[in-house]
Amino acid sequence: MRIAQVPPLYESVPPKLYGGTERVVSYLTEELVNQGHGVTLFGTKDSITKANLYAVCDKAIRLNPDCRDAVAWHIYQLQVVMENANEFDIIHFHNDYLHFPLSSQDRYRHITTLHGRLDLEDLEPIYKKFYQVPVVSISNSQRKPLPHINWINTVYHGLPETMYKCGDGKGNYLAFLGRISPEKRPDRAIEIAKRTGIPLKIAAKVDKADEEYFEKKIKPLLDHPLIEFIGEISDDRKEEFLGNALALVFPIDWPEPFGMVMIEAMATGTPVIAFKHGSVPEIIEHGKTGFVVNNIEQAVKAVGKLHSISRAVCREVFEHSFTSAVMARNYVALYERICGKEGKIFHLRARSNWSPKEKYASYD
Amino acid sequence: MRIAQVPPLYESVPPKLYGGTERVVSYLTEELVNQGHGVTLFGTKDSITKANLYAVCDKAIRLNPDCRDAVAWHIYQLQVVMENANEFDIIHFHNDYLHFPLSSQDRYRHITTLHGRLDLEDLEPIYKKFYQVPVVSISNSQRKPLPHINWINTVYHGLPETMYKCGDGKGNYLAFLGRISPEKRPDRAIEIAKRTGIPLKIAAKVDKADEEYFEKKIKPLLDHPLIEFIGEISDDRKEEFLGNALALVFPIDWPEPFGMVMIEAMATGTPVIAFKHGSVPEIIEHGKTGFVVNNIEQAVKAVGKLHSISRAVCREVFEHSFTSAVMARNYVALYERICGKEGKIFHLRARSNWSPKEKYASYD
Repeated sequence: MRIAQVPPLYESVPPKLYGGTERVVSYLTEELVNQGHGVTLFGTKDSITKANLYAVCDKAIRLNPDCRDAVAWHIYQLQVVMENANEFDIIHFHNDYLHFPLSSQDRYRHITTLHGRLDLEDLEPIYKKFYQVPVVSISNSQRKPLPHINWINTVYHGLPETMYKCGDGKGNYLAFLGRISPEKRPDRAIEIAKRTGIPLKIAAKVDKADEEYFEKKIKPLLDHPLIEFIGEISDDRKEEFLGNALALVFPIDWPEPFGMVMIEAMATGTPVIAFKHGSVPEIIEHGKTGFVVNNIEQAVKAVGKLHSISRAVCREVFEHSFTSAVMARNYVALYERICGKEGKIFHLRARSNWSPKEKYASYD
Repeated sequence: MRIAQVPPLYESVPPKLYGGTERVVSYLTEELVNQGHGVTLFGTKDSITKANLYAVCDKAIRLNPDCRDAVAWHIYQLQVVMENANEFDIIHFHNDYLHFPLSSQDRYRHITTLHGRLDLEDLEPIYKKFYQVPVVSISNSQRKPLPHINWINTVYHGLPETMYKCGDGKGNYLAFLGRISPEKRPDRAIEIAKRTGIPLKIAAKVDKADEEYFEKKIKPLLDHPLIEFIGEISDDRKEEFLGNALALVFPIDWPEPFGMVMIEAMATGTPVIAFKHGSVPEIIEHGKTGFVVNNIEQAVKAVGKLHSISRAVCREVFEHSFTSAVMARNYVALYERICGKEGKIFHLRARSNWSPKEKYASYD
């Protein structure tokens, strides 16, 4: 298929550092090329891809101090994409709602993955207004605040299969990996370590917005023989950091739409002890690839049961469900449904125009 | 005519406090109603207008702490406007470029006043891409960074004629009114006061972004018998503050696209001593409504020549050129040119499609 990928422009594809959406777009794009599709990426010029790169702007916006108007670049990107729309069978947007007024005029050729949380009050009016636009969730739980828009399917994120090797978990520590922020609850991870007596290594960056939280709430907890704060680590070091851990602790306190670090852990064979919020029960199979818990007590008990989890099974589940090859195949199936059947899916909500035999029971 | 006004949603129309664009949209909207037009304002619900109010959202975004995604509301507003487009002869946007991908599909029914500075690097690609979209400048100087886009005309801002009465200037002080910021150069105003020995009253707000500048650069200069810092004042108090002043000092150091305070001063009969940047030479007639100067020395000399300026003439120039009635008539003339001639103006840049007799020599 001829496929356009339209990522945000805040980071290059893949990002130089942090940048969740752009990283997933990179994995998807490269894998679509591997699978033989003709892909064009409308990204920043400093992106690195085997696809055709249409360079919308020179540099990733977040790292460009000269860039003071990010919206201008995204509107510009939108126009460039639409001017070239006839070159593609499908346009895959990763830019939230920005293109809806324009793309919604074209019924059969676009799909949008929503990468963010949807439980902000501001978002309800615009998504309700565009309830017909075909959108993809990155977990079923992500849909909860907006159940009645035109969800086509859930496609879970994936990682390149060979990116991380399976580790042996012999490091005798619990791992916390990601950002220091109130919704990630590193304080809970520290509490779990102290109550189980097992060391905790924290590999996490501190965003400017979270500096006060780090200084006031987390730093005082770090001065303990069991706790080691490593700071931000690069992708290179994640394999070792995760693969040597007894478990990844993921004690979140917000509706995480996906949570890449859970499948990164699985890829290294490391089980996950995760709090039951957002996507967690969809990604982690309780008792198989980790434990889904509701509170600190349950998390502490879960640590005691880690011996019952097979690291080989964790890796198997990763390979079966969370590689970028799986993700790409799932997306191609959606692309084909949308453009191959003359946009029938797009009309799901307008059932009165349908003859009964064309109806689909459910796409969820 | 049936006219839609599309302001930003950051403030109500008119704004409760500061808010340049929304204030001008309010003056224009009310005056268009006065002149017998059917006007619909697509603003926030807390706007106050004699026009039809289509309430896009409940509250001004800037004053609403629950609002975390301003772009979502503006994309929503755009869609609401476009869904109702057939109700109007003309849609007048005041929202920069956000609507260009959509509105540019409709050739004969919209016009956009650009209210901001255009000398940011980020803006060039998007405005070049949409060089055909009909746009209005608020001063000729505003066009300089983007001379080749489809400028239809310049329309200067206006104030309601009865908003301010002419004052007598007998307060024996120079006035500085607006924001404390590096580009407004209050330090220059203070220097001029000290060199002429005439008191300066500073009525200005300090935005959060400018607090450091105020503390470090300006506060140390305020401890002087000639200098009085009043803080922010409401519209009610401007008439007295400006009308009693010998002159308004406007020592800017940036390409001000318009500068409302200059015409506010003129409305109260007060001459303006302004540095030659941006719109200044277009708004102030040197030797008639004030003095256009290049440096502190010239400003000091200008203070000595204030007796040669007639306050009655300042007021006359205001009434002739800078009332909202004049502004509204100028805009209506543009609306009629755009929708009355089947969009010929819109095609100005696409000259190859034109027969010679349809060509216009120039619109500037």
